Amino acid sequence: MTEMEKMGARAKSAASVLAVAGKKKKTALLAIADALVANKERIIEKNNIDIKNGEENGLTQSLLDRLRLTDERIDGMAQGVRKVADFDDPVGQVITGRTAENGMEIKKIRVPMGVIGIIFEARPNVTSDAAALCLMAGNAVILRGGKEAINSNTVIADVMREAIESVGLPADCVQLVKDTTRQSSVELMCLSKYLDVLIPRGGAGLIKAVVENSKVPVIETGVGNCHAYVDKDADLDMAVNIVDNGKTQRPSVCNALETVLVHSSVADKFLPMLKSRLDEHNVELHGCDRAKAILGDCVIPAEEYDWANEYLDYKIAIKVVDSLDDAIEHIRKYSTGHSEVIVTNSYEAQRKFTAQVDSAAVYVNASTRFTDGGEFGMGAEIGISTQKLHARGPMGLTELTSMKYVISGDGQIR
Amino acid sequence: MTEMEKMGARAKSAASVLAVAGKKKKTALLAIADALVANKERIIEKNNIDIKNGEENGLTQSLLDRLRLTDERIDGMAQGVRKVADFDDPVGQVITGRTAENGMEIKKIRVPMGVIGIIFEARPNVTSDAAALCLMAGNAVILRGGKEAINSNTVIADVMREAIESVGLPADCVQLVKDTTRQSSVELMCLSKYLDVLIPRGGAGLIKAVVENSKVPVIETGVGNCHAYVDKDADLDMAVNIVDNGKTQRPSVCNALETVLVHSSVADKFLPMLKSRLDEHNVELHGCDRAKAILGDCVIPAEEYDWANEYLDYKIAIKVVDSLDDAIEHIRKYSTGHSEVIVTNSYEAQRKFTAQVDSAAVYVNASTRFTDGGEFGMGAEIGISTQKLHARGPMGLTELTSMKYVISGDGQIR
Repeated sequence: MTEMEKMGARAKSAASVLAVAGKKKKTALLAIADALVANKERIIEKNNIDIKNGEENGLTQSLLDRLRLTDERIDGMAQGVRKVADFDDPVGQVITGRTAENGMEIKKIRVPMGVIGIIFEARPNVTSDAAALCLMAGNAVILRGGKEAINSNTVIADVMREAIESVGLPADCVQLVKDTTRQSSVELMCLSKYLDVLIPRGGAGLIKAVVENSKVPVIETGVGNCHAYVDKDADLDMAVNIVDNGKTQRPSVCNALETVLVHSSVADKFLPMLKSRLDEHNVELHGCDRAKAILGDCVIPAEEYDWANEYLDYKIAIKVVDSLDDAIEHIRKYSTGHSEVIVTNSYEAQRKFTAQVDSAAVYVNASTRFTDGGEFGMGAEIGISTQKLHARGPMGLTELTSMKYVISGDGQIR
Repeated sequence: MTEMEKMGARAKSAASVLAVAGKKKKTALLAIADALVANKERIIEKNNIDIKNGEENGLTQSLLDRLRLTDERIDGMAQGVRKVADFDDPVGQVITGRTAENGMEIKKIRVPMGVIGIIFEARPNVTSDAAALCLMAGNAVILRGGKEAINSNTVIADVMREAIESVGLPADCVQLVKDTTRQSSVELMCLSKYLDVLIPRGGAGLIKAVVENSKVPVIETGVGNCHAYVDKDADLDMAVNIVDNGKTQRPSVCNALETVLVHSSVADKFLPMLKSRLDEHNVELHGCDRAKAILGDCVIPAEEYDWANEYLDYKIAIKVVDSLDDAIEHIRKYSTGHSEVIVTNSYEAQRKFTAQVDSAAVYVNASTRFTDGGEFGMGAEIGISTQKLHARGPMGLTELTSMKYVISGDGQIR
């Protein structure tokens, strides 16, 4: 057995205890939250090593900022864990039930997934956040974070494991892969014997690598090449607000807007309005020839790259289209299936757009920035699924569970 | 673009029409059923070529029988398609809905999966059966059957495509891969750009190959190493009925029983009763030392292979265990997560068994043979999922759909 297989076996064994742990899961989460706060110094000390290494290795300021843990951030992590502990336990919920003609009772009930693997990048707060969600849904978790945060992740995992053990649950409910070489990711992706699902959290490159190489079922999260379509019947002030909010409120996240499609009959009026608003944030404009003809030389000619990728930055791609159908066609071609919005007052146009655009979240007259577990009323989330299997959109506790049938009879045979 | 990619692109385009086809889907299915009956001669003629080739290539009688299409079997296929047309359309169903505090309406609605790939083995009736289910759920389907049935599958697919076109839907809603070499399976498994899910239907070898090699999300179906545990508090007559039914009513299917675990305190009494019943079907007994000590030389010593594999035949593995915990432990180790049953009158024992056994269907005092879409009230099924992601247990129309969020606002931003 390899080290990774041993971790898998320990996780599976812990999962079978967790599956029937009931309210002890909540007790464990509260203990974890307390332990995070009580061990702040110990955590920050290790985090400082990661920060120092990061500075020496020339990480950008923004990456260093994501890596840094402070008093307040650790409080935030603890608070996040407490919030998860407050949710209703999804395990044991009866999803459907019926009595068959032969008298058998057939119930479909919610059960934990089992063992969940999470591969994530720099932010160490993911460690407590993801572990808490997995644990509350009754799953053991194997975390594999990036090498930049290895010291922080190790101490956070240790603190969590101690807390879990202190309430009488197996420490192996949460395990961290210490080896941060590429090899450990590959081994995790091959651990089908023990892992029930693998969730990559991070940038497009990481997600693509996991989706293409994993032998374990994967839930794809996060890449959001999101579009706004400003219809000929749009309220243009509302459209400016929605595009501005989608682009500039937090450009680095997956539900931020990347492309605006505008109907040719309102482009002359709308684009200057939009430009004047986006200028407040110095948003770089990339656009088609027609957009450039309207807005002038401030528009950088858009290329295939601009339509096909997330900027995650103060940049936006603009295309003038001649119809709703053209807009839908563009979205079909380039969208990653995350979030799209139509701004319109036409009943017919919104009906068509919501029926034909095939993304996790399709909006009418509201910002794509709302695609979020908290905003959708699921509490915390482990990510936004952009695939169609199992979960689509924000994934909360329910999406971290599976189901099984329990059939009670009195001797029925076929 | 390769031929397979072209098929994928055509399927995706057909899927976007199907997604909003509404009741036309039902019309298409009824047309398919009529066309199958009307084209019986044409189908049987092509099927005869497969049968002749099969005989020349030395296929077993049982494989030839699965391959053969008769008047009655084609009627049965048509009947199956009509049955699917009778179901309620799952697409458009509102799964949940709420109004957020800011006034946005958030609905979660059922939508088609998109494009489904199915890789299956010899039985040509799967062609119409699987295609009908996919189509009714609004999905385009790419079918890849075995080479033994290629002539039958081709004509069946042609008949279906003609019928689909006759009602004004794209023929490419159903496509058959004509190339039956290994290469075409591999290409299908790499078609992530177009395929939303891949479902293997067939034996353990096929399923394993697809699960391990596919880059497209897979739903694992079918392998059933099913267990019965006869508890110390079991009604032994009921236990004999349930084990006999599970083993002998149809040994070749995935929900058939493969291993019986019996509590040591009732083994002396139960095993002779069971043997005498199983002898009526000449069931070959493989067992542990203790079973052999009770039943004598008719028991072939069981080896690791016997616990770990499906017989799919008139053979059964018998193990005497000392406790419910030992039974659960054995099931954890060897089960493929399909169906297991406890026979007991103990309330406590059944509660523990149903809570701790982690399989798609867990029975108390009823035959595992009931794990079936029809028996569970879902109508037809495309297979039994033994994985935990997306679908578990029998997969009907609902399991062939995905969902999306539709959010209606009036200018909300964050």
